[in-house]
Amino acid sequence: MDERPIGVFDSGVGGLTVVKEIRSLLPNEDVIYFGDTARIPYGNKSIPVIRHFCLEITRFLESMKIKMIVVACNTASALALDYVKRNTVLPVVGVIEPGVRAALRRSSVDRMSVKIGVIATKATIKSEAYQKRLMRLNSACTVFAKACPLFVPLVEENLMDSEITRLTLEMYLSELRNLNLDALILACTHYPLLKSHIADFFKNEVILIDSAEETAKEVSELLKARRIAAPREKVGIEEYYVSDSPDVFATIGEQFLARTLDRVFLETVWQRSVEK
Amino acid sequence: MDERPIGVFDSGVGGLTVVKEIRSLLPNEDVIYFGDTARIPYGNKSIPVIRHFCLEITRFLESMKIKMIVVACNTASALALDYVKRNTVLPVVGVIEPGVRAALRRSSVDRMSVKIGVIATKATIKSEAYQKRLMRLNSACTVFAKACPLFVPLVEENLMDSEITRLTLEMYLSELRNLNLDALILACTHYPLLKSHIADFFKNEVILIDSAEETAKEVSELLKARRIAAPREKVGIEEYYVSDSPDVFATIGEQFLARTLDRVFLETVWQRSVEK
Repeated sequence: MDERPIGVFDSGVGGLTVVKEIRSLLPNEDVIYFGDTARIPYGNKSIPVIRHFCLEITRFLESMKIKMIVVACNTASALALDYVKRNTVLPVVGVIEPGVRAALRRSSVDRMSVKIGVIATKATIKSEAYQKRLMRLNSACTVFAKACPLFVPLVEENLMDSEITRLTLEMYLSELRNLNLDALILACTHYPLLKSHIADFFKNEVILIDSAEETAKEVSELLKARRIAAPREKVGIEEYYVSDSPDVFATIGEQFLARTLDRVFLETVWQRSVEK
Repeated sequence: MDERPIGVFDSGVGGLTVVKEIRSLLPNEDVIYFGDTARIPYGNKSIPVIRHFCLEITRFLESMKIKMIVVACNTASALALDYVKRNTVLPVVGVIEPGVRAALRRSSVDRMSVKIGVIATKATIKSEAYQKRLMRLNSACTVFAKACPLFVPLVEENLMDSEITRLTLEMYLSELRNLNLDALILACTHYPLLKSHIADFFKNEVILIDSAEETAKEVSELLKARRIAAPREKVGIEEYYVSDSPDVFATIGEQFLARTLDRVFLETVWQRSVEK
């Protein structure tokens, strides 16, 4: 038993898709969430910069006496997961491994070879983290990766239903649609908000993998294996910390979680020392 | 006479439009440029965060022994110009005042009232910096302000000639086109790269104000007034510092300046103390 909260972080609001699944699967757990809203987006930044930002956030979460860290951001998971693991004694879970395993499990039932698509930010695609992991787990797998850098601003501008978004889907995804994919991994936490549009574009002929649910399952298994789950009689609560504009975060967060976010605070992580 | 360089900063590469005009008008001056590529864009951030980032950059530029600071970013000028001025002994020039004066000068020749449009990031529009300044200098002026948050990612993805951009121009600017404006201020350093598209959209019936040229004139006047211009026999050089990916900056910068950028260095300003 371990009553300490689970620490979850993302570059902004997108990681709330993971919080939602954790809350649904693990109602007894407390959650401390950090969203780096002052430095979003991570998707176009370089490895050293993202690692430094992740380390600052890790130090902040450690100071909140958490029991494990969930890197609920695809770019940070792709570029900095091992780095975070090396720099903390806490267990760390990312979103890539769960997404990769779900894609392979759901697509390779009765086939000798599988074709998996991955759409994500530039930094995630360039890191080849998904491509390498998929190939390692199934060498008969062919991976088609595509960076879709306009999807995040379109979602943030709430333009999902506009003709602009339809043309952008066409620009990025037409090639992938002709490939007869077995599964397509939505490898950015913003993309689930475009899920129905992407499904329509693929005429529902591809399995879409949203890694939030899979990540929550991995968290649940880790808590059991290490015997650090919260007691069953406990009712889990959440606290949110962001590096800019808590009010904006609370408003958008309500759309993600379909309920009010009461405890949202400002936390300027860059004013902390990362030395130990 | 003062051989020290002019310090110029922006959230990224956009401020190079100002460097280009300074180089053309003031060939004897050295320039030290800082682009905050690790934390771009500034356009959706809050006042305290932008002020903190600007202060870190100011301290870095001061350490480079400059003689004045040009805030070549509309969002930073709108939200943090006075703050920077209060926190340094160096003279500071922003991009708003020159743009405002040019818009009024070029539009109010023989009219009792003028109609000025301003397009910019969300943060610049919300600050009302342009609106307030225009009204103060000409109380007969009516200002129409519009935030165009997708323009920056479209320019950064080099999609200026796509149908997606045409639809986005239509979404943001249709209202303004019907207003018979005297002038339209392109109040974001990225927007000059859309200048011909915006001119086409307005059927060349509006004067477009690009503040880079006006800002260079203000710098020139300030150097003369304070007698701190560089000696005439000197050939000005430039050095560029960015907080992420110098190679990417150099590549995009060459498009802005139409020549090679040799001296581009990495500078992580957040590791500096802002205390004095």
